[in-house]
Amino acid sequence: MKVVALAGGTGAAKLVRGLRGLDAGLHLTVIVNTGDDAEIWGLHVSPDLDTIAYALAGALDETRGWGLPDESFRVLDAMARFGEPTWFNLGDRDLATHLHRSRLLRRGHTLSEATRSIARALGVAEVVLPMSDQPVRTRLRTADGWLDFQEYFVREKAQVAVAAVEYVGAAEAAPAPGVLTAIGEADVVLICPSNPVTSIGPILAVPGVVDGLARCAAPVVAVSPIVGDDAVSGPAGRLMAARGVPVSSTGVARMYAGWLDALVFEASDGNLAPAIQAAGVRPVPAATMMRSREDERALARRALEAAR
Amino acid sequence: MKVVALAGGTGAAKLVRGLRGLDAGLHLTVIVNTGDDAEIWGLHVSPDLDTIAYALAGALDETRGWGLPDESFRVLDAMARFGEPTWFNLGDRDLATHLHRSRLLRRGHTLSEATRSIARALGVAEVVLPMSDQPVRTRLRTADGWLDFQEYFVREKAQVAVAAVEYVGAAEAAPAPGVLTAIGEADVVLICPSNPVTSIGPILAVPGVVDGLARCAAPVVAVSPIVGDDAVSGPAGRLMAARGVPVSSTGVARMYAGWLDALVFEASDGNLAPAIQAAGVRPVPAATMMRSREDERALARRALEAAR
Repeated sequence: MKVVALAGGTGAAKLVRGLRGLDAGLHLTVIVNTGDDAEIWGLHVSPDLDTIAYALAGALDETRGWGLPDESFRVLDAMARFGEPTWFNLGDRDLATHLHRSRLLRRGHTLSEATRSIARALGVAEVVLPMSDQPVRTRLRTADGWLDFQEYFVREKAQVAVAAVEYVGAAEAAPAPGVLTAIGEADVVLICPSNPVTSIGPILAVPGVVDGLARCAAPVVAVSPIVGDDAVSGPAGRLMAARGVPVSSTGVARMYAGWLDALVFEASDGNLAPAIQAAGVRPVPAATMMRSREDERALARRALEAAR
Repeated sequence: MKVVALAGGTGAAKLVRGLRGLDAGLHLTVIVNTGDDAEIWGLHVSPDLDTIAYALAGALDETRGWGLPDESFRVLDAMARFGEPTWFNLGDRDLATHLHRSRLLRRGHTLSEATRSIARALGVAEVVLPMSDQPVRTRLRTADGWLDFQEYFVREKAQVAVAAVEYVGAAEAAPAPGVLTAIGEADVVLICPSNPVTSIGPILAVPGVVDGLARCAAPVVAVSPIVGDDAVSGPAGRLMAARGVPVSSTGVARMYAGWLDALVFEASDGNLAPAIQAAGVRPVPAATMMRSREDERALARRALEAAR
């Protein structure tokens, strides 16, 4: 079975790890947000691509939910004296990934090629694709002006009010090689429980992706990142509110309506089922909190079942 | 007193540290070899510039004679899986220097500017100048073809026979801003006990430097890196032999003859004095082994005295 997953960071990492753990003859392709890529210390950092690759390699740090385990921050400590920014927590082991990626990109390789090289080196068997080889950068307008995503998310800890979100470069970007083919040939397309505004939003902003989702023969199933009236983690709730979307699984259903077939959402929000249905999306209640590997596999299984 | 030192790596670091330790109202400018600069993991590494800056900052690792103390190699360990070269021992703390330098260079700053930024950050009070802002690369011809200096020195541990040495780019390079002025205004010019072929040679190959040394009013004093018939450290002896120069302080005197006034050389090689004199260079016997800070200061003092 060919499964395609659209993915952002932490929540997506858990779901794709769950899919990988199903051991059900899945052929998994993960299309990953690059809207929060950043240049740190002159290096090209792709937080979501790395989170997914590390998760699929079984190498994602369990405690933090990002980066590698047994990490140290020796380079970071040494950068301070040079007046280089130290708010982005780049670990020493993680840094090797960014050095390798940056070197490949400077040599003229595409982000797809660099991603493939990293995934292969980590022993990832699944296909990991950036959403685009062209730069798309999510930026957020605050009272102090526009912030890049990492400035907002890491430096400001997502504690500043956001008035608008833009995906700079998206209109000129093209889906990376393999993205539209994977969607077109999928048996099921999953939208991971990632931030709809800053994780899935940038992927959908790449010309051709929404059309591909709307036209694909496979069922498209999303897993809602919202429980009750807030996100399981991160600023998804606040950013949905900034967009004028209800902060609920109903809001998620409305954002994806038009091409989404089913929404797996938290069973305790069962009262939302009629509203989700009204948005033209089939509601599929489930236990969506992933606190263990078994939770991850169970939710992955439920999402695949929802596609049937 | 304005002292200008032409410098390479380890031996030079000791002598300039000795000069710094004299506390004699010295205004020290160090002109540093960049012929062994290398691109490692996509970063611009300047081993001699860093050795000098670290030494002047009091931050050079005492045991290794290069790099920073309390060093770790976490990034290096993590690079191996990406198939990136790991023969160049880039420490984590040291890596910050290269990241900072590379970022400044990519932003369009010159190597001089990057060097000034690093020296300032490290608290170096002396002036450290690269010999040139243009790339000059020392390469060595072996039975297996041409090697870059670091490939020869670090990867091959200088254990391969060298048939020829070239300074690629030297003819098109210009002295970095301040280099010729410093030499022209110096009260004394010191040539550090560095490899004449691969440390001092590249500096001399930059158009204008030899002419500046020949014309400057100040006495030019070299400290020989050779004791007996071999270098105190490193492959200087073998490289001088490859050049057809006698491996002795006499050979050093002959390489620098034409613009050198005095050569401070190992007292136990006193029998070489007539040959050095015959090369047109005033022989100044001294204890040239620097095994302690006091040795460094004593040799620095002796070199300055030799200029009188």
